[in-house]
Amino acid sequence: MTIVAPRTPNLGLRLPSDEGVLLVHGEDRPGLVRAISSALSENGANIVSLDQHTDDPEGGRFFQRTVFHVNDYAAVRPALEESLAKLLGKGLGLTWTLSDRSVPKRVAILASTSDHCLLDLLWRQRRGEIAMTVPLVIANHTDVADDVRSFGIPFVHVPSGGVDKSAAEARIVELLKGNVDLVVLARYMQILSGDFLEQIGVPVINIHHSFLPAFIGAGPYRKAKERGVKLIGATAHYVTQDLDEGPIIEQDVVRVTHSDTAADLQRRGADVERAVLARAVTWHCQDRVMRNGRETVVF
Amino acid sequence: MTIVAPRTPNLGLRLPSDEGVLLVHGEDRPGLVRAISSALSENGANIVSLDQHTDDPEGGRFFQRTVFHVNDYAAVRPALEESLAKLLGKGLGLTWTLSDRSVPKRVAILASTSDHCLLDLLWRQRRGEIAMTVPLVIANHTDVADDVRSFGIPFVHVPSGGVDKSAAEARIVELLKGNVDLVVLARYMQILSGDFLEQIGVPVINIHHSFLPAFIGAGPYRKAKERGVKLIGATAHYVTQDLDEGPIIEQDVVRVTHSDTAADLQRRGADVERAVLARAVTWHCQDRVMRNGRETVVF
Amino acid sequence: MTIVAPRTPNLGLRLPSDEGVLLVHGEDRPGLVRAISSALSENGANIVSLDQHTDDPEGGRFFQRTVFHVNDYAAVRPALEESLAKLLGKGLGLTWTLSDRSVPKRVAILASTSDHCLLDLLWRQRRGEIAMTVPLVIANHTDVADDVRSFGIPFVHVPSGGVDKSAAEARIVELLKGNVDLVVLARYMQILSGDFLEQIGVPVINIHHSFLPAFIGAGPYRKAKERGVKLIGATAHYVTQDLDEGPIIEQDVVRVTHSDTAADLQRRGADVERAVLARAVTWHCQDRVMRNGRETVVF
Amino acid sequence: MTIVAPRTPNLGLRLPSDEGVLLVHGEDRPGLVRAISSALSENGANIVSLDQHTDDPEGGRFFQRTVFHVNDYAAVRPALEESLAKLLGKGLGLTWTLSDRSVPKRVAILASTSDHCLLDLLWRQRRGEIAMTVPLVIANHTDVADDVRSFGIPFVHVPSGGVDKSAAEARIVELLKGNVDLVVLARYMQILSGDFLEQIGVPVINIHHSFLPAFIGAGPYRKAKERGVKLIGATAHYVTQDLDEGPIIEQDVVRVTHSDTAADLQRRGADVERAVLARAVTWHCQDRVMRNGRETVVF
Repeated sequence: MTIVAPRTPNLGLRLPSDEGVLLVHGEDRPGLVRAISSALSENGANIVSLDQHTDDPEGGRFFQRTVFHVNDYAAVRPALEESLAKLLGKGLGLTWTLSDRSVPKRVAILASTSDHCLLDLLWRQRRGEIAMTVPLVIANHTDVADDVRSFGIPFVHVPSGGVDKSAAEARIVELLKGNVDLVVLARYMQILSGDFLEQIGVPVINIHHSFLPAFIGAGPYRKAKERGVKLIGATAHYVTQDLDEGPIIEQDVVRVTHSDTAADLQRRGADVERAVLARAVTWHCQDRVMRNGRETVVF
Repeated sequence: MTIVAPRTPNLGLRLPSDEGVLLVHGEDRPGLVRAISSALSENGANIVSLDQHTDDPEGGRFFQRTVFHVNDYAAVRPALEESLAKLLGKGLGLTWTLSDRSVPKRVAILASTSDHCLLDLLWRQRRGEIAMTVPLVIANHTDVADDVRSFGIPFVHVPSGGVDKSAAEARIVELLKGNVDLVVLARYMQILSGDFLEQIGVPVINIHHSFLPAFIGAGPYRKAKERGVKLIGATAHYVTQDLDEGPIIEQDVVRVTHSDTAADLQRRGADVERAVLARAVTWHCQDRVMRNGRETVVF
Repeated sequence: MTIVAPRTPNLGLRLPSDEGVLLVHGEDRPGLVRAISSALSENGANIVSLDQHTDDPEGGRFFQRTVFHVNDYAAVRPALEESLAKLLGKGLGLTWTLSDRSVPKRVAILASTSDHCLLDLLWRQRRGEIAMTVPLVIANHTDVADDVRSFGIPFVHVPSGGVDKSAAEARIVELLKGNVDLVVLARYMQILSGDFLEQIGVPVINIHHSFLPAFIGAGPYRKAKERGVKLIGATAHYVTQDLDEGPIIEQDVVRVTHSDTAADLQRRGADVERAVLARAVTWHCQDRVMRNGRETVVF
Repeated sequence: MTIVAPRTPNLGLRLPSDEGVLLVHGEDRPGLVRAISSALSENGANIVSLDQHTDDPEGGRFFQRTVFHVNDYAAVRPALEESLAKLLGKGLGLTWTLSDRSVPKRVAILASTSDHCLLDLLWRQRRGEIAMTVPLVIANHTDVADDVRSFGIPFVHVPSGGVDKSAAEARIVELLKGNVDLVVLARYMQILSGDFLEQIGVPVINIHHSFLPAFIGAGPYRKAKERGVKLIGATAHYVTQDLDEGPIIEQDVVRVTHSDTAADLQRRGADVERAVLARAVTWHCQDRVMRNGRETVVF
């Protein structure tokens, strides 16, 4: 297998060439694994790894992630897509997406004043740990501008604009629409409207600083201190119109004690936040995460 | 140091003799550590270990746990208590309790039909892992009777009695009042009244099958499955009149995935429940847990 | 799907009927997933879940676990086996095993004096958490006899016999050979000979009280205390002729501090030991573990 | 309590003024806690928190960390030191050190080519999470020079010089001696001589990329992959003349599976390495770590 390095400043990123990921989901029925593996085989593709899940053995939904290798993928892809459309789409009524592992996802990051989640993502991107490029960072404050630019990444300041956020949102849509495959909110302290989510047209991942559904809303560390919990956590989820209710991708916790102040919780929580967000973005960029209503399937 | 074995079927329990634990709490002020260590020294006691916490350096509350050794503790104890009452109580307005490490706590366990938390506690008691004796297990069902008796521990069936729980509660108070130092609810699926808590007169520890405050109330595993969380947990807390709101002693979590069913969550959660409850009871019986309003200090 | 309950005292065990597990491993080559799924489809089997792994994309070894449902499995099985033998064995040179999920594994447990790992397995078996029956417990001491029998399980005392263990081993082989599918060493403090392993003819799982390969050999908790580690652990592995070198199935750790004595380490380690062994046995009985030289693949 | 900000680029560091930390260790005997608290009280100091440990109740060693507040600490300190020298040193034969919490530790970091541990420390220092200033980073390669300087911290390249390291070590001693309180090896891939350790005269903390004592020496991730472990870890320890044998300050692990390659282990291990090193350095800079032979006491 040859590998290609992207043109972006991902110093360490080495992506496999001639490998694709096929995600399929839909109503479960007998023979789906066979049908999908046959469709791949018939187009000269060899399965490298396969994960499959059915959420209910009787009348449930079917989810499958297949990584395959095929010689000269770019050339073969149109024929493969046609096959899949015919077989999976029309024939079986399944929903499917196909991606090319040699092409990193284009990810925009939105931030406010906190640097921990943002810098952790940029470091990992530079180290080649995440299959992504970051064409742009947008923030409603300017605190992180210098750090972002030191990574060779453009920074754009879009003030949030007080009560009416619509102008700010329109500006962000203008900058990102069509240019990115994913938007990551790295402690971006603004609530996005349903309109924005619809217009941006790509998934949006947020990091919430609590183990949802505990401590929904603002001030989770203060609330955690008041309630006297012995664990604090963080949750990465896809953003939906319902605040803090989107499908959870990843969560983790860290142990705290009576001697930790609210400021200590915030400091210790920052480590969990950046770790959890990094894992969620990494998995998303590997096409490992599929939505299933309010839940996710993470292969 | 000599050690004494209790008369109860704690096969492995070895408790230090001539050692006491002094718990002190109250308004913080300069010189408290010195005053307490002087009071102990003047009575011939040598400090074995000391933990101290102040919840706010300015005008906060002071908490101290001191383990000490003194020759012939039983004989010396009255004089020591008099000293402490004079110095700490009258002199400094502090609240204090003194205990004897050679005396295990007397613990009643209340259960319903689940055996995992109950058997884990009985087995740890038999191994000598917890400084307690269990004079009695009470349940509102009879499923666990044989298991309890196989440990050589009396079992009493007190049916919960439908809508009016008062007769059942009165029966439990009658059995336990004055006979135990702690009541543990090992998945006892009944809500205890404020009257009961007042009459029983000793702390009551409950295990809740979620990482509180998430999934308060009934059916936490079902709710967790519906919400698609990636971690499930358990919480041990002191019971207060406010359901699921008592001071948290210990919490822990376990990782779950999309492929775990609600039944899997329940099974995996059972392991966390018994581990968390065992730790909370162990610490309580070592006089390591002090209440501070809605929180606990765990030394 | 109907479910059948075994005749053994697995009170809670509910095993799916008409479901099988097919494990396949061998030299990787293109088309294996398709070939296996086709072989199942052609025999009327529908894939319920599938996990696949290749240890090296170029010239590596292929591992696949497939759970399938087929109507009237017991009747269909001979034809299915014939198909698989022809296709996978002769045609592709793969090694495969087929099992029936409605049939629990028959597991013998060997113990010495410690009860924690043994009782945890017996509890879980009784609760129906592990797809196994336990026809026999053998120990070289009698300490655990009463506990074992209280579960309704036969206990046989086979003293280890001093320097020459061959008579004891022969007695164990005589009792177990042909009667069990797995042998579990639940803190059985005897080293088994290569002869024994060959004659017993089924996998043997051991629990070692350290995070191997640290603290190989005897006295790991003492060694851990001397080395001042901040984590202690346990390792479940298949037993091979090389002591403490068998393929690792599962490991876990727990945090310790300077204030833990060697006795504390042993006590806290016991919890890790029983949890790790229970997971390893559970996974083995679900046909989730495949050996790959010195490693395991755990699906 | 007023707080002072250091003159260094610790943007977020807020250190308490008029607070000191007294570390005491030596042969245990009755009355030590009282003696120390009296010595502090008599000099007008009020105990803020106190941790105490004895490694053996009979004839063991005594360790105590006391945080205290005293008005005008800088002015009072000489008298306090005189008191302590008289009471603790001459009177009781104890070893003690006194520090001022308003003064951050001066920490030099040595690196090679890896950036993850180094950048994590610099970023935490900039956020004010660690009570340290970093006057200098030294590396035997130049890969990290730009990153270090972007934090406003001087970078010096000291090539390791082939077989004879003595010139390189002499150059490092020349740069650091008397200028720093701690040296941190952030994946510095050179073995330091006993001579160097003696001359540098301050503690040296290293991060080893395995859960010591497993996989001592070079290539731990490769060895871990070969052994098929299910957990990989990292260990922060004080450097002594015995390679990988110094007193352990902190360890942690992360779960891996059969599907992780050796490169994956390295990538996932990097996260554990930087977390473990950051904790060890944080605790050292808070005067929480005391050596006890081959072990550490971490309060």
